[in-house]
Amino acid sequence: MIKIGILGYGNLARGVEASIKQNPDTSLVAVFTRRDPATVKIATEGAVVDSTDNIESYKDKIDVLVICGGSATDLPEQTPKYAAMFNVIDSFDTHARIPEHFANVDGAASSSNHTALISGGWDPGMFSLNRLYGSCVLPEGKDYTFWGKGVSQGHSDAIRRIAGVKNGKQYTIPVEAALEAVRSGEQPELTTRQKHTRECFVVAEEGADKALIEKTIKEMPNYFADYDTTVHFISEEEFAANHSGMNHGGFVFRTGVTGNNGEHKQVIEYSLKLDSNPEFTGSVLVAYARAISRLAAKGDFGCKTVFDIAPALLSPLSGEELRAHML
Amino acid sequence: MIKIGILGYGNLARGVEASIKQNPDTSLVAVFTRRDPATVKIATEGAVVDSTDNIESYKDKIDVLVICGGSATDLPEQTPKYAAMFNVIDSFDTHARIPEHFANVDGAASSSNHTALISGGWDPGMFSLNRLYGSCVLPEGKDYTFWGKGVSQGHSDAIRRIAGVKNGKQYTIPVEAALEAVRSGEQPELTTRQKHTRECFVVAEEGADKALIEKTIKEMPNYFADYDTTVHFISEEEFAANHSGMNHGGFVFRTGVTGNNGEHKQVIEYSLKLDSNPEFTGSVLVAYARAISRLAAKGDFGCKTVFDIAPALLSPLSGEELRAHML
Repeated sequence: MIKIGILGYGNLARGVEASIKQNPDTSLVAVFTRRDPATVKIATEGAVVDSTDNIESYKDKIDVLVICGGSATDLPEQTPKYAAMFNVIDSFDTHARIPEHFANVDGAASSSNHTALISGGWDPGMFSLNRLYGSCVLPEGKDYTFWGKGVSQGHSDAIRRIAGVKNGKQYTIPVEAALEAVRSGEQPELTTRQKHTRECFVVAEEGADKALIEKTIKEMPNYFADYDTTVHFISEEEFAANHSGMNHGGFVFRTGVTGNNGEHKQVIEYSLKLDSNPEFTGSVLVAYARAISRLAAKGDFGCKTVFDIAPALLSPLSGEELRAHML
Repeated sequence: MIKIGILGYGNLARGVEASIKQNPDTSLVAVFTRRDPATVKIATEGAVVDSTDNIESYKDKIDVLVICGGSATDLPEQTPKYAAMFNVIDSFDTHARIPEHFANVDGAASSSNHTALISGGWDPGMFSLNRLYGSCVLPEGKDYTFWGKGVSQGHSDAIRRIAGVKNGKQYTIPVEAALEAVRSGEQPELTTRQKHTRECFVVAEEGADKALIEKTIKEMPNYFADYDTTVHFISEEEFAANHSGMNHGGFVFRTGVTGNNGEHKQVIEYSLKLDSNPEFTGSVLVAYARAISRLAAKGDFGCKTVFDIAPALLSPLSGEELRAHML
């Protein structure tokens, strides 16, 4: 039985908790919170809620700690800190800062004989795996990653910061014509605008200048200016009824050519269609927690990524079972 | 530089040879043939063609031997035999006999300090990987594998054995409605007939009984009787012009549910659209040859499958490069 602790109790943590129930060889020991533990009600009988202040006393009770903080400020501090006490796993997703985060976590884990995995989830994570496998199998080729249709938290936040906006949600939508062009194997060059559109649903405050809000959204640099963006103003009731989900997904393509003269086109496509982004991410983390606990038991310490994990380590089945039934 | 030998020189071997040219860290040393080497002309300058009788003299000149025989009779004999002399890789694809083949190859490789990989390619191979990752990430779910649209060699052979048939080719075609039902996440139960159709293009001999040929095909047990099969009689010219390709492909799905009450549907889809089946398979084998040569250099001997290979081992890039650019 793999004993798991969860640090934090937001959407991702609840996804991890739900996934633990689906994996009979894993069990939840404790959820650690910075809030008053008495105010946090979890969904697992028999597991405790405790303060992060007491976490060190669980050192011998937990095989893997799943750290469910945010990438902007939480994880850069938390993952190295707790990698000195536990085997840990996180879903750090600031692509540009991965090398720095890796180095910090690797230092802490290696020197304390722990095993860590950073950047689990689906992007980075399952999408990264597909970029890697695709590039190795088709070295003369091109990668494409599309996101959506799904909710972008960062873009939704940006909308909500505009004066006069009461609530807002943004969907990233891949352009069907771009997907088809990639699927053809023609290796098109695609601009930012050609790949994705952005659709915004906004609840405006009473008396707000809607035309100004729409203009502010559409001209916002980095977030919206480079995209074809549509803005819909809706009521609070409609927002609550139709836009409270956390669906997401996307596509990774590798298209390339093979043959002595590059005469044959080959297209690899991987896609996800997720009703719940945090529950899927949580499910990936629990599968990798299994791998991390096995590596730690073998004495294979330090920081890993999904690239370093042999796929069989993710499965509760034995090598014999996998070869007989899944190969 | 990874020095590669190829055993055999059919379509798959030529695919491996073409892939070696696309991978600057690999080079082809020799092609081994059971035919008279003087009659075999290869596409790589500087590589030699030699008889399989002389293969043992290459023991110190080759890092990995890629064995390109057939699964029915060649590989069960060849892969264990040559695993005693070389690090080897094959594309053994008789799913039911994989455990037995694995045991034979593992014995030969382990006792002679070599590393082997069996069942590389796309099914088994890349499809197996997607079945494994999918089942680990979505334990409460269901797998679906579809093949095509593409040429089935076994079914084409079966057609050509019928009296009065001069030439024949069979395409396996996934049923679009079945793909859509799976994509919905509803986890449908699908019969053999609901998943694939079979389309046959036949060149009949002069004066042959076409109605009888069609009936014989459609009623052939195992091969066609359980499918909706269409048969087209065409001229030799049309056959040569339109049906000489080796395209193939297919789909692997994992659809499952997550959440405390299984309330969210999650759909993973992986697909291949290949202009050349043997060239794609050859490209997969070369990527795994890189991994096998690295494991052998580390002293990690015995038989492996794609499940045992950490993805980073497939890439010519370093861990730092992969984390910085592909994660």
